[in-house]
This record gives sequence, structure tokens and C-alpha cells, in this order.
Amino acid sequence: MAPRHDVAHLGHVELLTPEPERSLWFFTELMGLTENGRDGDSVYLRTWDDYEQYSLILTASDTSGLRRTALRTSSQDALDRLAAAIPDGRWLLAGAGIGPSYLCTDPDGHEIQLYWETTWFEAPTGLRPSLKNQPQAYPGRGVSVRRLDHVNFLAADVPANGRFVAGALGGEVTEQIVQDDGAIAAQWLHFGNKSYDLVYTNDWTGSAGRLHHIAFATDTREDILRGADIFLDNGVFIETGPHKHAIQQTFFLYVYEPGGNRVELCNPLTRLILAPDWRPISWTQAERAKGQAWGLKTIESFHTHGTPPVPAKAL
Amino acid sequence: MAPRHDVAHLGHVELLTPEPERSLWFFTELMGLTENGRDGDSVYLRTWDDYEQYSLILTASDTSGLRRTALRTSSQDALDRLAAAIPDGRWLLAGAGIGPSYLCTDPDGHEIQLYWETTWFEAPTGLRPSLKNQPQAYPGRGVSVRRLDHVNFLAADVPANGRFVAGALGGEVTEQIVQDDGAIAAQWLHFGNKSYDLVYTNDWTGSAGRLHHIAFATDTREDILRGADIFLDNGVFIETGPHKHAIQQTFFLYVYEPGGNRVELCNPLTRLILAPDWRPISWTQAERAKGQAWGLKTIESFHTHGTPPVPAKAL
Amino acid sequence: MAPRHDVAHLGHVELLTPEPERSLWFFTELMGLTENGRDGDSVYLRTWDDYEQYSLILTASDTSGLRRTALRTSSQDALDRLAAAIPDGRWLLAGAGIGPSYLCTDPDGHEIQLYWETTWFEAPTGLRPSLKNQPQAYPGRGVSVRRLDHVNFLAADVPANGRFVAGALGGEVTEQIVQDDGAIAAQWLHFGNKSYDLVYTNDWTGSAGRLHHIAFATDTREDILRGADIFLDNGVFIETGPHKHAIQQTFFLYVYEPGGNRVELCNPLTRLILAPDWRPISWTQAERAKGQAWGLKTIESFHTHGTPPVPAKAL
Amino acid sequence: MAPRHDVAHLGHVELLTPEPERSLWFFTELMGLTENGRDGDSVYLRTWDDYEQYSLILTASDTSGLRRTALRTSSQDALDRLAAAIPDGRWLLAGAGIGPSYLCTDPDGHEIQLYWETTWFEAPTGLRPSLKNQPQAYPGRGVSVRRLDHVNFLAADVPANGRFVAGALGGEVTEQIVQDDGAIAAQWLHFGNKSYDLVYTNDWTGSAGRLHHIAFATDTREDILRGADIFLDNGVFIETGPHKHAIQQTFFLYVYEPGGNRVELCNPLTRLILAPDWRPISWTQAERAKGQAWGLKTIESFHTHGTPPVPAKAL
Repeated sequence: MAPRHDVAHLGHVELLTPEPERSLWFFTELMGLTENGRDGDSVYLRTWDDYEQYSLILTASDTSGLRRTALRTSSQDALDRLAAAIPDGRWLLAGAGIGPSYLCTDPDGHEIQLYWETTWFEAPTGLRPSLKNQPQAYPGRGVSVRRLDHVNFLAADVPANGRFVAGALGGEVTEQIVQDDGAIAAQWLHFGNKSYDLVYTNDWTGSAGRLHHIAFATDTREDILRGADIFLDNGVFIETGPHKHAIQQTFFLYVYEPGGNRVELCNPLTRLILAPDWRPISWTQAERAKGQAWGLKTIESFHTHGTPPVPAKAL
Repeated sequence: MAPRHDVAHLGHVELLTPEPERSLWFFTELMGLTENGRDGDSVYLRTWDDYEQYSLILTASDTSGLRRTALRTSSQDALDRLAAAIPDGRWLLAGAGIGPSYLCTDPDGHEIQLYWETTWFEAPTGLRPSLKNQPQAYPGRGVSVRRLDHVNFLAADVPANGRFVAGALGGEVTEQIVQDDGAIAAQWLHFGNKSYDLVYTNDWTGSAGRLHHIAFATDTREDILRGADIFLDNGVFIETGPHKHAIQQTFFLYVYEPGGNRVELCNPLTRLILAPDWRPISWTQAERAKGQAWGLKTIESFHTHGTPPVPAKAL
Repeated sequence: MAPRHDVAHLGHVELLTPEPERSLWFFTELMGLTENGRDGDSVYLRTWDDYEQYSLILTASDTSGLRRTALRTSSQDALDRLAAAIPDGRWLLAGAGIGPSYLCTDPDGHEIQLYWETTWFEAPTGLRPSLKNQPQAYPGRGVSVRRLDHVNFLAADVPANGRFVAGALGGEVTEQIVQDDGAIAAQWLHFGNKSYDLVYTNDWTGSAGRLHHIAFATDTREDILRGADIFLDNGVFIETGPHKHAIQQTFFLYVYEPGGNRVELCNPLTRLILAPDWRPISWTQAERAKGQAWGLKTIESFHTHGTPPVPAKAL
Repeated sequence: MAPRHDVAHLGHVELLTPEPERSLWFFTELMGLTENGRDGDSVYLRTWDDYEQYSLILTASDTSGLRRTALRTSSQDALDRLAAAIPDGRWLLAGAGIGPSYLCTDPDGHEIQLYWETTWFEAPTGLRPSLKNQPQAYPGRGVSVRRLDHVNFLAADVPANGRFVAGALGGEVTEQIVQDDGAIAAQWLHFGNKSYDLVYTNDWTGSAGRLHHIAFATDTREDILRGADIFLDNGVFIETGPHKHAIQQTFFLYVYEPGGNRVELCNPLTRLILAPDWRPISWTQAERAKGQAWGLKTIESFHTHGTPPVPAKAL
């Protein structure tokens, strides 16, 4: 069955941080995002190639984690169609930079916000690019990531959430991990030609609504190697990488931003999923045991660290 | 209006060459394509990331140029829908690696072949990749391009052809050149998230059905820089580049393969068109006069060389 | 004859600018140098991999150009030996960060300062690197060049100056341009394994003591491509490149800093001259006419622009 | 004290392999070396930027390991001076591509061959480069390494060997590992501006004359990332990497060639040691425990695998 294309792409996320000042420093000075407004405890931040107003809402909170993931639909009709098919959501009035939206949750409780209307970004003086097919001047500050690329949720029941994204939102599974007992431990889903936009990974703690990581795409692998040096010299915790994932073949680097949330720098080279009838790739436990593409063993914390942190008694 | 997505992606092209042996050497040894069968005067060649059987049919001929451009549809329904809407085409029986197809022409006379059924590539021993999400082992030979990326046609009437791709095939214009007199001199159209798949550029000779270039995507800009050295040491004519286009921001290198056809190595970094309501960017003559992104002047032959060559009397 | 190694390497240069504020912005914000002190009209600037105090003295002046080029000797003996062999110089007292030095001029009048004693840089808090084999944290700001790489002087009599560098300083010619009439139009000389440190190019204006460009080395070619975008979006004039020189095979980009001085970003990949008996490569006019390595024609201003500018009456 | 520069650079090594056919395939097809003659059980192989005849002699043997390391001196005088100062060596007649040489051993028993006369490589038709400052056309086959970069010996007594290289050969220590008990566990020594040419690492087995690895320099880090894919798809064992060493900051990848010898792909970016009075950097056990630059833990086999393998009874 051909993709439905009702969801066009990942729009932005709202990330919570108990260290708002230092998280803001991380995203602006090291990642190279640009501030585009504030509202209460929230700062709106944009990557330089975002045609909308912002890619990330950074909100001060008593803990870390992801409050909301916003997806832009491909039309008003698509938004209405999606809303009609998801009974448990509710409409929100137009908000910062976007029109009316429909807020729902996936089975694990992550908030998903669907919207169609958006305000295109017009660069003010000082941010104006030289080439008119680019929303904003290239910042040349820190890593200077191009875009918010994907969100990796933790979930108690991965396939249930995958079915929601496929059934309700029209996403499709491109790759997945299938354990020897048949259980699906992770699923990568996409809406367009990117090989994934939303990912679900098993949350072994039994908690709900947690985040594994958000990812930003760089233009090159060299940007990620350079980024590793920048993080190193700025005292940012590097969890693992740079290396190449076997799954999806993404070149990656994982760090923890000062608020504790895991952030990935990712680069897919020019890989795209063009086949409209792509067949999901299933990876076995044995294949996963080989580690990443070039043999790097998957680090233990990759299976345990999520945000917000789970109280010890819950473990 | 949201994209129709009836055409999924560029499938393959058939290229004519009066120098079949040397063209074959160019595409296999320098570009890194892999032979996957022969039929009469034609050799089937594939890039390593092609999930189908081949990306290029190289056919010996008395002249150069492009015989045919094949586009894969997103479903059988989409194929039928497209065929029904294009009255002047005809159905072809299933051919090498693909099912029944509908053959039509754009207003300038370029053959467009639409097909849905395709035979996925299963790598034989010796070409088997280590990672199961890749169709074929990475060749490590010459440039080792990832995929056929786009086709740039020459056309006497650019907007008429752009309207055909938009109206009949569901493509959308992402960028274009608009002269001071309002004439559209070139249009870039896309079907998915790639920023362009088919391009029309004005053919000032008044000829019909000619080719400006076919392009192959590399994984990195470094692959293109390395490619330039490979072409240099192998006596391949470098027309212009490596440099960065202002239009579409593609990093590029243009060479002439031994048969005379212009071939581009292109790398878009991670740029994609995600907005479902993308607004075409129009470039003025004054903007074009500035040259490419970093100031390289557009080389004269870029406006004059096409294949097949036009007899002098036609000029 | 084996190299003498009395001169160890290029230490720093003093550059004049009639636009001190904007030149400073260029070197700190775009090139990524770090300020390390001021003295009168001069600002001391360092690249992140400089083990000494500074790589560039930027001095406000009524015009542009190069005031002085400082070379570090390989020992106190070497300094004394050099001074003894160059009768027309004079000793200077210890200055900012360096010990007593011997100041002389090449035949064209460029000031050459030889010194041995130097104060190693100790990074203050905030600039401290994570790896102890690096003098300073990687700035991650703009291009973030690694080092001052070479100086290209203009000279009325190229071979006379080349003989001075070879005879008095112990440099050796690695490559040169020899015209059809036998005249040497340019010479590249080196002191260690770098393929060049000082370059002389013919100054057709008949002026003396002028600068063609100073060059800073980047870690990668990608840094230069990224730099081109940074310069583009910041309104810095890009003269030519990025491209690859045929001579020395350096990957290059030339811009004019706001004071008018030409600045090169250069990357030699990992090329070194290891042969102790290297034979100078001589390029003919015909070879030069082919342009740069991949065919880029040498831009006209490359033959005409030098600093300080020459009054029209002098031309 | 200033460097003596009597040794100009690493010339070539002779490597032993019990799998001569497959080792030859590895070095020619995957590493991109070019065969330049055979003699008995030996094949002469060259990297494309070697100005001499060959960089590697690959010799069939009953086991693996390194037979000999050849260093080119900076003059005939330097060769004579070195020979005079090393009493235990012997002169060899002129051999393949080189003149008379002086053969000695380091304290651990590794053969060191010193020579001055060499035959510069003249590329035959088919290998002729386009640019005259390059010895051979760029192969564009596999990784296409630029040069043999360094040799890492194992030794029972690291400082004794380091003193030999420093005292007898004029090398200098740039970095070293100093254990908490004061023992020196590894030393990196250099002869010119490269940050290291010969390395000694502690051989805990008590064996003598063994090899840790030989290393080839690539032009870019991208070449190493691409190399990792080539090795992966060709079934070559990847031991660790790609990653960045803390020591020397080299970007690296380690594989075992089919004969069992460890081979490194290394890229130093543009890092050079320019200071003539460089102060050796000493790394503590605690610093080493942090792993490589970006946190990768040093893999266990890195401390145990050497060639030839040591019989179990010896352990």
C-alpha cells in the first residue's frame, strides 16, 4: 500500500530541562540554533534551514523529558482527516507561529500535536541569507545543525505505538528489531523519503511517555567529527560515537545536553527511501549483538538512560 | 495544493553513446556502477544503492543523447491514473526487470516511461553487502556513486514542459529562472522530498528532445573532490566545478563521458524539501549573472553543449 | 644538498589594515582566531593550534599590506649564524612574547624578523583544551583555522628574493613558474616538511614590499567549503575558489578581509615534502594556461590585486 | 637541542605474511597500492605519492610480522655518520631501488636499514599523473592511501628502544605514556615535522622484535570512513575505530590484513610539530583510562595482539 502522506514532516518538539540556562547555552552556542522569541519559561529556537518559526521549544521544568512532538500535516484536509480518525484528542487554538492544532497522545502517552497552518520564517536583518532558497544565514557557530531530524521515544509496548503511527498517522515502518521470541523491541517509522522520523524503543523500566533522544541532522559527517571536538572542549558528556549505525546506516554522535536529555547529531549521507513499497528490514538479536556497523559495541547506558529519569524505586 | 505523489521517483534512464566501449569503462571503472546484464547493443548498469535492477541502460548508437527516462509510480492505481490522463501514450509489455509500462512523451519529445511493477535486486555472491538494509556491497571503485539522481532536459519551451510534469505527472516546481521579459528559462521539478528530479532548461538551438545532463548523487562532497582527481588522471573532460550551485545549493561537478553526454556528480548535503506547500523560488537574470553560489561564473559551454549535438546548419 | 633547517617555521606576521574594527571582526568571528592582548594600535591574535603567543598582529594603519614576517629559528646558534650571514639587519630587543630578534629585509624590502626565544602559550581558564597535546580549546567559531600557514609576497625580482631565502635563510625551492623566456615568475620555498612557507610572485607594478596574500591552514577541505558559506552570508568578498591549485595541489579559497588584504584558506590534505633532495618542479606558461588543477581559469585580479594598493599613477 | 635531521623519513617496510595471495589482494584492491615488481617470494608495492620505488615489500613466510624497517637519511654524510655511530650493524650492497645501506637492529631486535641513494619513481604509461608534482596517477581503487606513515613496534623495554632512536638515529620523543610507577609504557618519536614516525609500545609477552602495526596515511577522515565500509563489505576484520586518538590526535581505523598483521589507516588532519624545541607530552595511566579522545574505550586486543603471534607456552 502506498504511503498516505497525510503527515508531511516532523515540525518541532518541546523539550523540558531543569537546567534552562545551561541547556540554552548548549543549543545556541554549541548546536548553533538561533533564538526566535520567548514566552514564560520557554525559549523558541530554530535551526538555520527551518522554513517555519522554530524547531525546538526549550522549557524550564523541574525535570527533563519531552513534553510534546508537533507534526505538520500535508494540507488542511489531511489535518481534518487525521483528527477525525483519532477520537481521543482535542483541538487547540492557534499558537506561536502555527494555526489550530489537534493534540492527541500515542499509546505510551507521548503528546502528538498535528497542525497545518504555519507562519513561514522571514529572516530579519542580521540573519538574512545570501541565497534566497535558504531561510536564514548559516550561523557558523558551533555545530550549526541543519534541522531537527527525528524523535526517538521510549515505550512500554513498541508495536502498539508503531501501529498507532502507522494506522492513525499514516507512517510506515522502515526498519525494526525483532527479538528471538518474536517481540518487537524497536521500530523506525517514516512519513516521506527520510528513512525515519519517529522511532520507538522499548522502555524496560515500565515507565510511560519517556524520551530516548531527539536528533538534529548535520550537513556532513565532518560536522559531526568537528562537533565531537566542540563537545569535548566544552565539557559536554559524550555517550557514544561518532560511529555508524547498522540500522538505518546513520552516522551518529550521542551527547547529554546539560538538562540530561540525550541529543543525537545524525547524518544519513544522501540515503533516502525512495521505494513506495519499501519492505521493513528486521534485525535479529544476533545481528544486534554484532554492535554498530563497524563493530562498536552498543554502550550500556544506551539501553538504560531516558528522560525524565525514573526514580530508583521504580526500577 | 498538496503533492499528488503518483510518481514515486526517477527509476532509470537509457543513454545513447557512439563510443560504447569507452562509455562503459567510464561508468563502471570511474563512476563505479556495476554491470547487471546485456541485451543487444545495451548494457544494464546499476548504482550500489539501487533497490531495482538497474539505474542506467547504456546503448550503442550512432550518436549521443537520451532515449528514455523511466519513472516509477507509487502504486498500480497511480500508474493507471496517470496513463488515463495522458492520452497520447501507449502501453509496453513487461520488460527487463519491470512490469507493463506506459510510454509517453513530454511536449519537447523526450520519452517518459511510467511503470509500477519492478523486480527488487537480490545481490549475487560477490556483491552481497554486510548490512541487510543495503542492496549491494559498496564497490570502492572510482567515485562509487550512490544513485541516479536527476535528469536535466533541454527544451524549446520550458514552461510547457514544466506544466506537463506538473499537470500530467504531479510534479511540482521548486525553483526556476525567470528572465526580465517574464520568460521562464529553466524549471526544477520534484516528486518527493528530493528538491528536484526533473529539470528543463531552454534549448536555444530550436532542436527537440535533447539532453543537458544526467546526474548521479554521491554520499559526500569529498567524493566529488576525489572524483575530480580521478577524472583528471583518467583524461575525462571536466567542464566546470567542483562548486556549489546557487540554485538548489547542490555541490556539483560536470564532465563529459566519452560518448559526449554531460554527466553531473551532485551532492545536496542533507537538504530536503519538507514543506508540502513549498513556494517556488524564482531567480532573476541579475541574480544569475552573479554566477554560482561562491561566485564561479557559469561557463559558456553550459549554455551550448547538449546531446545529441546539433548539426552546424541547425544553429 | 640537505636542507639546513636553521629556520624552523613561520612564526607570525604583522598585517596592516585601514579598517581595524572590521578586520578584527573578520579574523575573530569568521576566521576563528582568539585575541591575546593589545598594544597601541595593534591586536594580537592566535590560532588555536599555535604553541606560541600569537600568529597575527593586526595593526591599524592608513593603508593595507604586510609590515613584517617573523620566522622562528631552530636554536639560538641558528639565529646567531643567520644574523652573522645577513649583514644589513639589526638586532631588536625582546618584544611581545619573543626574545631578542634580528630584523632584516629581503631584496624586495619585506621585513623579515628572525627570533629564537619564545614564550609558550598557557591557556587561561575558558580556553583550556581537553587534550593536553593541544595549546588551546577548539573555538568552534567561524572557520576555526588551525595555523598561519604561509606568506605570499609580491616582488619585482622573484629569483633575487628566492636566492635570498635559499642562500641567507636556508630555504629551498619546491615549485616555480618558469616563463618561455626563462624568467622565473614565481617561487615556492620551504624550511621543513611543509611544501611551502614563503612564496614570491612577480609584482608587475614595479612597486616594492607588497603582499599577495597570507594563508591560514584548515583541518579539512570541508572546513573551506563551510568557510565559503560563512563568507558568503557575511558579505566577505570571495575572489576565487574553492578549488585545487595545480601548483602544490593545495585546496584553496581566496577572500579579501575588510582591510583589503587577500587572505587564503588553504588545505594541503596530508601532502608533505619528505625527500631531503626534492627536485624543484618547474611549471611552464603552457601548463599555467590550463588553469588550476580541475580547470578553473585563474582569475584576472589574482594577477593584479596586492596590498597596499598601488596609486594609479604608479601603474 | 635542535633535531639532527640525519634521518629524513620512513622509507619502506618489509612485511611477512603466511597468506601471500590474500594479503596482496588486501593491499592492492582494498588499500589501493600498486605493484612495482616481484623478486622471489616478495612483491614490491607502492602508494601513489611515494617518490621512491616502493613503500612496502610483502613477503610470503611461514608466519606474520615485520622483517625490516628502512629509513632514508638526509644525505650520504648523514648515512656515514649514523653508521659510524652504530657499531653493531653491517653494510649491505645496493638493492632493489636503493643504494648501499647500513643494517642494524634496535635493542628489541627489530631490523633497521639506513640508506641514502634511491631511485626516483618514473611513472610508466598507464600510471602517469596529470599533475607533474605527483609521482603517480591517483588510483581511485579502494582506500587509495597516500603514503606509508609510521611503524609501531612492540618492545620489552620501551625506553631503551626510545633512547636508541633518539641517541643513535636522532629522533625525538613527541609523546609518551608514563605509568604511575614511572615506567614508560610507550613512546612516539619523530624525525621531521610529522608528529611521529616510529612508535614503541610495551610487549607484555616478553617476546622480541614484534610488530604492533604499520600505518598508512589517507588524505581525509572521509577516506577512513569510506575505508571502513570497504573493509566491512570485504570481510576484513575491523579491530577498532574509526575514532580519534587522544595521543597525537590521529583519526584512526585498525584492521587485520589477511596475514594477521594489524594495519592502521591514519589521518592527522593538518597537524604538524613545528616547534624545534617541542616538549614531550606525558600521558598518565588515569588519562589513558579515559579512553580515546571522544571516549571510546581502548579495545582489549589492542594490548595483546602483535605479530608474529606468540605461542601459548610463551605467555
